[in-house]
Amino acid sequence: MTTASICTIGDEILIGQIVDTNSAAIASAFGAEGIRINRIVSIGDDRDEILSTLRRELERSDIVVTTGGLGPTKDDITKGALAELTGAKGYYSDSRQLDIIYRILHSRGLDVMDINKAQASIPDTGETILNKLGTAPIMVFRIKDGTYGHPATLYAMPGVPFETLAAIPDVVADIREHTGLEAICHRNIMVYGYAESALSEKISSWEDALPEDVHLAYLPNPLTGVKLRLSIYGGNSEDDSKRLDGHVAELRKILGDAIYSEEEDTLEHALGTILRENSLTLSAAESCTGGEISHLITTVPGSSAYYLGSVTSYAVSVKEAVLGVDPDVIDRYGVVSSQVAAAMAQGARKVTGSDYSVSTTGLAGPGGGDGVNPEGTVWVGVATPTATYTKKYEYHSDRKRNIQRFASSALFFLLSRIREDLSQKK
Amino acid sequence: MTTASICTIGDEILIGQIVDTNSAAIASAFGAEGIRINRIVSIGDDRDEILSTLRRELERSDIVVTTGGLGPTKDDITKGALAELTGAKGYYSDSRQLDIIYRILHSRGLDVMDINKAQASIPDTGETILNKLGTAPIMVFRIKDGTYGHPATLYAMPGVPFETLAAIPDVVADIREHTGLEAICHRNIMVYGYAESALSEKISSWEDALPEDVHLAYLPNPLTGVKLRLSIYGGNSEDDSKRLDGHVAELRKILGDAIYSEEEDTLEHALGTILRENSLTLSAAESCTGGEISHLITTVPGSSAYYLGSVTSYAVSVKEAVLGVDPDVIDRYGVVSSQVAAAMAQGARKVTGSDYSVSTTGLAGPGGGDGVNPEGTVWVGVATPTATYTKKYEYHSDRKRNIQRFASSALFFLLSRIREDLSQKK
Repeated sequence: MTTASICTIGDEILIGQIVDTNSAAIASAFGAEGIRINRIVSIGDDRDEILSTLRRELERSDIVVTTGGLGPTKDDITKGALAELTGAKGYYSDSRQLDIIYRILHSRGLDVMDINKAQASIPDTGETILNKLGTAPIMVFRIKDGTYGHPATLYAMPGVPFETLAAIPDVVADIREHTGLEAICHRNIMVYGYAESALSEKISSWEDALPEDVHLAYLPNPLTGVKLRLSIYGGNSEDDSKRLDGHVAELRKILGDAIYSEEEDTLEHALGTILRENSLTLSAAESCTGGEISHLITTVPGSSAYYLGSVTSYAVSVKEAVLGVDPDVIDRYGVVSSQVAAAMAQGARKVTGSDYSVSTTGLAGPGGGDGVNPEGTVWVGVATPTATYTKKYEYHSDRKRNIQRFASSALFFLLSRIREDLSQKK
Repeated sequence: MTTASICTIGDEILIGQIVDTNSAAIASAFGAEGIRINRIVSIGDDRDEILSTLRRELERSDIVVTTGGLGPTKDDITKGALAELTGAKGYYSDSRQLDIIYRILHSRGLDVMDINKAQASIPDTGETILNKLGTAPIMVFRIKDGTYGHPATLYAMPGVPFETLAAIPDVVADIREHTGLEAICHRNIMVYGYAESALSEKISSWEDALPEDVHLAYLPNPLTGVKLRLSIYGGNSEDDSKRLDGHVAELRKILGDAIYSEEEDTLEHALGTILRENSLTLSAAESCTGGEISHLITTVPGSSAYYLGSVTSYAVSVKEAVLGVDPDVIDRYGVVSSQVAAAMAQGARKVTGSDYSVSTTGLAGPGGGDGVNPEGTVWVGVATPTATYTKKYEYHSDRKRNIQRFASSALFFLLSRIREDLSQKK
């Protein structure tokens, strides 16, 4: 199995100023290719520390990826360390990256200074993969057997997250071309509504019956549910693909609608696809989720094709004035109730003219319950062209995570109701 | 200077399933105490790897903090490794943590099983700090000079982020009590609207004039601006405190309103405080930010005291129907315009009855500009009891980060306008 280490370089992570999202993105992409990550290390902008850490990781792993340390004011440290590590005799300038540097800076109305041009300068032991979104190219150093006891490849990537994210597929393609990765046949199955342990129990007989060469991984995430990844390493024949389809079909018999996607990794993307494909429109009425549902829906590029908008009715007066919720219903049942969730969803549907609408009303905390509902309770409502549905969920976390779980529960409940409607039409 | 290493234990981070937010939180809290982080390492659930990594980090740092690996099904590996590392002869049960375990599980309607009780079981070489929000206590191992050449302390914390976050102050207090941290006098000054380099240029003469014992750190963050941290190490006298106040007063003369807080770290918290203290209410009208502004405002506990709600008018029809934006204004000036931003803010103020309202209309991308405005443009509007203001901002990032920057720019512009109004009333 091909192995890798990830090293982030830069004081920003060590002082807690930024959260390292790059490593998770790289680890996840590598995992999908069957590359095992040995360790992730964050170190500061220090030449000796960079050299000793990279040597140690190159000894233990086939691939080492660094991120960061390549900014215009900092690249002397990391780039110089990489030149020393690989025994470079000099530098050359990559003209294609230089073109990108000119284009990016000019588009922002900035002059190209020497420190900017220097970003296209590469140790002569290295090759480049272009960074289309930023100024620092990805540097690739291919190190022969002799040095670390095995052939090793070092990829030096920029630290800016959207540049790193965009370059990962190119790095993976380079690995596939040069390192001879094992072929791999995959299926990702997104499951919502089960804790990992409960899911494992539910599908244990199916799991036990899987052939030995079919590997199953559980990848739980509080916002998107559990991703089940089925893999056949070394398998890429049509036959392997059909075998995996067969196992997924068996799994669907057990889990039913809890499987919400095999193509997309998030509820909001799966929801977007089904709405777009069926020319349906959506709106939202939020209370305790405070805008998070709307935010998630609109993170999907192209969401304006199906999403009309939302009302966040944090105050009761807004529930009444904008969404038209009957004050008597609030008085009689309380704000956190099935009835108010239903009225909010109906109100948003009416006021925006959407086909579907989803609503939330609950208690994210802190401050405890309302006497009837404990903190962590949410009622979700879904108004459809023909009916209104509500469902209660309960969580036990802090305010921030309760809000996130309320939002993902609402998206899942909505998605299930839309699927149900579509299946009845067929 | 006291130094520390952070080790996260668990396969979840290595396979990219979760982003490591705990390390940033710990590093940030330690940094505020003058503790320098040497490195952050993520390793898998592997006994040998845990032992060799902890030994190496205990050699180089005064303090090592581990997170994760203490769940009910996994604690045998990490806890066993810690027992072996510290030469424990057996385990004891911490009765106070056991009480918490019973309370938490019972409150969720769950039975306490043996694997749950085992979480209160501690190697006899260790002490505990209670985990009030979770089942696994924080374990503390104080290791004398002989083993690593210096006294070292190992803290084993849980991996669940809200439990870790809540326990950090207790760990810091323990370090302060036992390790003899240097006293430290701090001021945090939050500045919005400057890139780090531009800010550095703007305040260079002030910075150059700082006495040698006053240290300045720049902590930039795209969402909250640049945090300037002024510190006097070893200083905690009233005189030191007054000196720092003097330097901050000088800085205010240069930066003016760009300084938005000395107490709070985020725009939404600073905004919440000023609204609450002045009994003002707020609403929002979002387009391209899609709910993110409302989400940020409502992450603040107690925001229901001042926040009434919002309308996310993703579709033009919702801008017209719910917010009452004149279709002629949209036709004449385009959706992304000062005029529409103003009308949206006024509409939200009217429909919710709030004192203030903030609006956004722009192009988060992808897909390029609209012929007039490039992708990354946002118009922000603020409607006040007496007037309406608008301002244009431009960013160059991907969809997700553009949305975040649009939202933080809107919050800052709103905060500035409220401050301006309040200062004129005085």
